[in-house]
Amino acid sequence: MPRYAYVNGTFARHNEANVHIEDRGYQFADGIYEVVALINGKMADERGHLDRLERSLNELSIAMPVPRSTLSLLMRELVRKNRLRNANIYIQITRGATKRDFKFPGADVPPSLVMTTWPFKFHGNAAVTNGAKAISTPDIRWKRPDIKSVALLPQVLAKQHAIEKGAYEAWMVDTDGHVTEGSSSNAWIVKGGKIITREATQSILRGVTRTAITKICTELQMTVEERPFTLKEAYEADEAFNTSAVALVVPIIELDGHKVGTGQPGPVAKRLYEEYRAYADGQRGDELAWTA
Amino acid sequence: MPRYAYVNGTFARHNEANVHIEDRGYQFADGIYEVVALINGKMADERGHLDRLERSLNELSIAMPVPRSTLSLLMRELVRKNRLRNANIYIQITRGATKRDFKFPGADVPPSLVMTTWPFKFHGNAAVTNGAKAISTPDIRWKRPDIKSVALLPQVLAKQHAIEKGAYEAWMVDTDGHVTEGSSSNAWIVKGGKIITREATQSILRGVTRTAITKICTELQMTVEERPFTLKEAYEADEAFNTSAVALVVPIIELDGHKVGTGQPGPVAKRLYEEYRAYADGQRGDELAWTA
Repeated sequence: MPRYAYVNGTFARHNEANVHIEDRGYQFADGIYEVVALINGKMADERGHLDRLERSLNELSIAMPVPRSTLSLLMRELVRKNRLRNANIYIQITRGATKRDFKFPGADVPPSLVMTTWPFKFHGNAAVTNGAKAISTPDIRWKRPDIKSVALLPQVLAKQHAIEKGAYEAWMVDTDGHVTEGSSSNAWIVKGGKIITREATQSILRGVTRTAITKICTELQMTVEERPFTLKEAYEADEAFNTSAVALVVPIIELDGHKVGTGQPGPVAKRLYEEYRAYADGQRGDELAWTA
Repeated sequence: MPRYAYVNGTFARHNEANVHIEDRGYQFADGIYEVVALINGKMADERGHLDRLERSLNELSIAMPVPRSTLSLLMRELVRKNRLRNANIYIQITRGATKRDFKFPGADVPPSLVMTTWPFKFHGNAAVTNGAKAISTPDIRWKRPDIKSVALLPQVLAKQHAIEKGAYEAWMVDTDGHVTEGSSSNAWIVKGGKIITREATQSILRGVTRTAITKICTELQMTVEERPFTLKEAYEADEAFNTSAVALVVPIIELDGHKVGTGQPGPVAKRLYEEYRAYADGQRGDELAWTA
């Protein structure tokens, strides 16, 4: 079965899905993205992702390439064409393709819209089941990481640094010694019954899964403290974990070589993973019933 | 006459020159670039640009896609095919196209090499002749601007901010109140006979044109002081100017609404422009004699 991507109005074969070399996403990282999890045929937190997508575009003064309802339909059509029930849906919007020039192009240059999918087995992800290692690294990003831009080179380097150290994720640390977030996830610790994660200001990306987990915690009457925390606090925590739309909740069992808590996935991370899965199963999925 | 670009081994028609949507340049800004001026059929500072290109690749652990001598020949072939004598040559190299994943791909994924050209009339550029306005803006870039990466979104926003204020360039200012550089150029001032520009550490890009101008100044026994300078010093300078491979030397006659010096292009900037042009005319151009 062929695999499809969506590129500027066309469902193209994935291996023939191209953009022009003068697309501003390619030459300037002048664009934004979202990754939405499709779990058991339902899109997890679609509204949160599309809200954030619109916010990122707004911060960069990039127009929505299609109305939001159309984008939503296109996501469903791509999932249907690729016959997926468990997957990640990647959406990228850039300021369009035109002669290279730093300044914004005129209104006659339409933004680019690209979407791809890849199958993902949420159940049985080894990192979730067994926990994973993380290392810390200086946060060298620009000063607007709250915008979900494709200018991801610092995060690429942070992740690669982690991989080369035998770890799964890099926790980035600001010049004050506080953890900001993971290279592709939000960072959390648990200490004395409190669940601690950095507040979502301009210094981190407001994770959609992070927001959902925060809400779930509140509903379950678990205490969430939104504040910066230090690496030392993380080393001495009872638990640590990451959240992201791609891997949901991943327990961090070792940080910079320090065993976190018991060195095994902790009860809070495990529970939040299950609660998030249940929450995701309750999402809207009717338009996705291509197997029905 | 058709216009050509070079894309991964092929000279493609410019309007059909595409890269895959999963090229890491598009999804992660995981790549670098150079712009080389072709002036009267000769490449200005080709060696300096290719040296810096190799340095940027090295900093990011991206392999050269072709040997340097081949790259040099490809640049010449593209210029020949497009029948250009005065132009900018844009070279972009990324970590290649593969399934989206932050970490580096395996050695089986070759880097991408893309080149385009556009005609440029170096003689009679209005900004050079009449001078231009600049505004200042906070430098919000990542902490490695010395790497010439395509993660240019902060520079795009800075340039657009300048344009919206009726200016030509944005001078970026660090948290200590010192000018780092322009959004797409290096920044210089002249005061009491001294030519002042920030030293090329990790806080700025080491401009190839900047390096050549520094050498020219030394040869002409003009005093260059490499140190950070404040906005206030710039407001009170005798002259200010920008250097870049694209526009060479552009006098800045107004900064944040303050008239710089006489408010007209100054003698130092004008002289350095002419000296740079003469220097560029002395470059190697024999392989480019397609009109002969």
